[in-house]
Amino acid sequence: MDHLQQEFSVRFSYPVFFTDDLFNPANLLFADFFNASASTIRRKLLFVIDSGVVEAHPQLVDSIRAYVTQHLPALDLVDDLLLIPGGEVAKNEPDAVETIVDAIDRYGVDRHSFVVGIGGGSVLDMVGYAAAISHRGIRHVRVPTTVLSQNDSGVGVKNGVNYRGKKNFLGTFVPPVAVFNDSTFLTTLDDRDWRAGMAEAIKVALIKDRPFFDWLDSNATALAHRDLPAMQYLIHRCADLHLKHIAGGDPFEMGSSRPLDFGHWSAHKLEQLTNFELRHGEAVAIGIALDTIYSAQLGWLSQSDADRVLALLRTLGFALYQPMLDANDSADVLKGLAEFREHLGGQLTIMLLTSLGTGVEVHEMDDERVRQAIVQLKRTEPQPA
Amino acid sequence: MDHLQQEFSVRFSYPVFFTDDLFNPANLLFADFFNASASTIRRKLLFVIDSGVVEAHPQLVDSIRAYVTQHLPALDLVDDLLLIPGGEVAKNEPDAVETIVDAIDRYGVDRHSFVVGIGGGSVLDMVGYAAAISHRGIRHVRVPTTVLSQNDSGVGVKNGVNYRGKKNFLGTFVPPVAVFNDSTFLTTLDDRDWRAGMAEAIKVALIKDRPFFDWLDSNATALAHRDLPAMQYLIHRCADLHLKHIAGGDPFEMGSSRPLDFGHWSAHKLEQLTNFELRHGEAVAIGIALDTIYSAQLGWLSQSDADRVLALLRTLGFALYQPMLDANDSADVLKGLAEFREHLGGQLTIMLLTSLGTGVEVHEMDDERVRQAIVQLKRTEPQPA
Ligand SMILES: NC(=O)c1ccc[n+]([C@@H]2O[C@H](COP(=O)([O-])OP(=O)(O)OC[C@H]3O[C@@H](n4cnc5c(N)ncnc54)[C@H](O)[C@@H]3O)[C@@H](O)[C@H]2O)c1
Ligand SMILES: NC(=O)c1ccc[n+]([C@@H]2O[C@H](COP(=O)([O-])OP(=O)(O)OC[C@H]3O[C@@H](n4cnc5c(N)ncnc54)[C@H](O)[C@@H]3O)[C@@H](O)[C@H]2O)c1
Ligand SMILES: [Zn+2]
Ligand SMILES: [Zn+2]
Repeated sequence: MDHLQQEFSVRFSYPVFFTDDLFNPANLLFADFFNASASTIRRKLLFVIDSGVVEAHPQLVDSIRAYVTQHLPALDLVDDLLLIPGGEVAKNEPDAVETIVDAIDRYGVDRHSFVVGIGGGSVLDMVGYAAAISHRGIRHVRVPTTVLSQNDSGVGVKNGVNYRGKKNFLGTFVPPVAVFNDSTFLTTLDDRDWRAGMAEAIKVALIKDRPFFDWLDSNATALAHRDLPAMQYLIHRCADLHLKHIAGGDPFEMGSSRPLDFGHWSAHKLEQLTNFELRHGEAVAIGIALDTIYSAQLGWLSQSDADRVLALLRTLGFALYQPMLDANDSADVLKGLAEFREHLGGQLTIMLLTSLGTGVEVHEMDDERVRQAIVQLKRTEPQPA
Repeated sequence: MDHLQQEFSVRFSYPVFFTDDLFNPANLLFADFFNASASTIRRKLLFVIDSGVVEAHPQLVDSIRAYVTQHLPALDLVDDLLLIPGGEVAKNEPDAVETIVDAIDRYGVDRHSFVVGIGGGSVLDMVGYAAAISHRGIRHVRVPTTVLSQNDSGVGVKNGVNYRGKKNFLGTFVPPVAVFNDSTFLTTLDDRDWRAGMAEAIKVALIKDRPFFDWLDSNATALAHRDLPAMQYLIHRCADLHLKHIAGGDPFEMGSSRPLDFGHWSAHKLEQLTNFELRHGEAVAIGIALDTIYSAQLGWLSQSDADRVLALLRTLGFALYQPMLDANDSADVLKGLAEFREHLGGQLTIMLLTSLGTGVEVHEMDDERVRQAIVQLKRTEPQPA
């Protein structure tokens, strides 16, 4: 058979920095990154910022202008700093991506230039996608401003937007060239976003890292009370685990390797059933609780370990029961299992726990047992006073 | 400085097959590719076909249906085979990409499935782009049906569409999972497309491969008279050189490595100045002629070698003079140089020849010398009888 075989590897590399007060004139971290790769080629900087972040940090745009003028004379700041709405709903509107692509076109932002996204996971997903499809990929830099985006979505390789109501239907795998996690932004998050972002940390600790779980357990009260150093540690550790999972596995998910999605089959369904009233992390916390109880019912996890997981989630402030769980005799949420199987191409793969820190994959879930887990979750949930 | 460094490589691999009569029931090549990767997961096949190809091969759709039914029982053929218009102008309309993305959504074509594009470079660019952005990348298979797409665009890693009149403004670097070069399709090409596709072969021979140039020179008359075996050899050799250039260099053009674009600075401009009346390959032939004369003027290439290049191009049937070349005292075409510099981020890089088979990069072109090359090109062009 006459054929040529093409084979090549592409190397991707990017730093994830941890800092505070990123655009303070005394903080050279951001400037050093760009100045290190000095070049004879004119490079532009296009900023795209979450308008929710600007509301909470009204001086941000001025600080950026002053910072770039002072520290980055070799780069051309696009004078028009774009503000786009944040939050999941913004990902439903094609407008934001079009606004960014148009700015890339209008201001001549080319493949030597940079698009810098500042915001929560939603804005970063949109900015990353717009940059990825423009000129077959403009370098993009991420400045995540939420717990979730600093410990998970913002340090990874995915981007995307919703299309006709389908979550992340359009998107690509394209890594950023750098990530700057600035803890100062976290101080203005509302309590729900502060809390929700921790669900992914608990998830990854439970399936991969017992010592991290123990640390979370010991620091739950501090985290619940918005202790910033504790949160910085959580983010650093979780980001590290996330980066290692990507690098050690199948970064662009081209094969059969699964993403880290413990607790996610029911979470996805609950987000949808609640019309995204539930934030992703809030839904994941419930999903973790459910699959933890399920693991204990199978006898794979001791009851006391399962109780520790539920207690940790509750100390952090998560509500673990949601009425949609038993709506329609739980048939609705169980549909999530069928959809997850469908999503995986017909072969179900679910992660369960055999101990705190160890996940294993199974290919079946028993509906009746899931119902029992829901009953148990409801029974143990404290009643609102 | 506190940071984590992410590092990983992603391996890409795909076969480029050479065959004829791809969907003939006796030809198992296409079926073998899919059946080799048998899986328990249900996989779909969505075909997207250049309507110009279907006009020239009216039995194609029926052959595909029969072929898939007979040889690919494990795959689900999406019953709706999409026909989309071919040619460069189709890449200006957002419709085609939307049609494909919508079909991917409607028919549940997931990340285990395949989108098969059949057509010229324009259709393949659109199909590859639509597949690349759907679900963060659906596997796509290419069946190129023109000389250009079989020897160059269809075996490479780029895709894209035009946006607001800007060529390939939206696009990604995403390799196909397989390419099937079927020479039967070439028999129905019109003469201009048959000829235009050979320009890239001459280009790559001139900068990389003297024996291939000599072969082209010896086979020019056969090629001009549409000898199919000669064309099959040209395509195989050119595709091979193209694949090696990609694998050996910087596949996703993330660094400073340049694509194979000898003769292209003026070609891009001429396509635009003629409102794309000139096909890409026709413009490239002129661009090659111009930069070959320029190389001879510098004394880098002997006059007799330069004459051989022009003679080869003319034997193949290329017209090497185009009135736009000296419109406005050549100021218009010389703008192409400025735009090329702009496109490269301010640093011009142009390939010239030091011998047949050896290209070298320069960072300056002299306007006056370009004008002289144009004069010479015009003077040597045979007058239409
Ligand atoms: N790409 C990935 O790998 C990946 C992974 C998980 C989740 N996600 C996506 O991330 C999104 C969720 O991101 P998120 O949880 O960061 O929330 P978000 O981006 O939806 O933002 C939530 C709200 O917080 C505001 N906000 C952001 N930073 C703020 C700050 N510092 N102070 C005050 N307000 C601020 C935003 O304006 C918005 O109103 C979802 O769209 C999800 O699909 C992506
Ligand atoms: N992706 C890349 O790396 C890359 C590289 C070079 C060029 N391109 C793109 O390729 C496009 C040009 O492609 P092309 O030269 O293949 O032409 P084309 O795709 O524009 O097709 C030209 C015409 O030929 C028709 N056609 C195609 N196959 C036929 C066949 N077998 N018989 C009869 N008619 C047929 C088409 O319907 C169309 O009308 C441009 O858009 C260019 O940008 C892409
Ligand atoms: Zn998640
Ligand atoms: Zn070309």
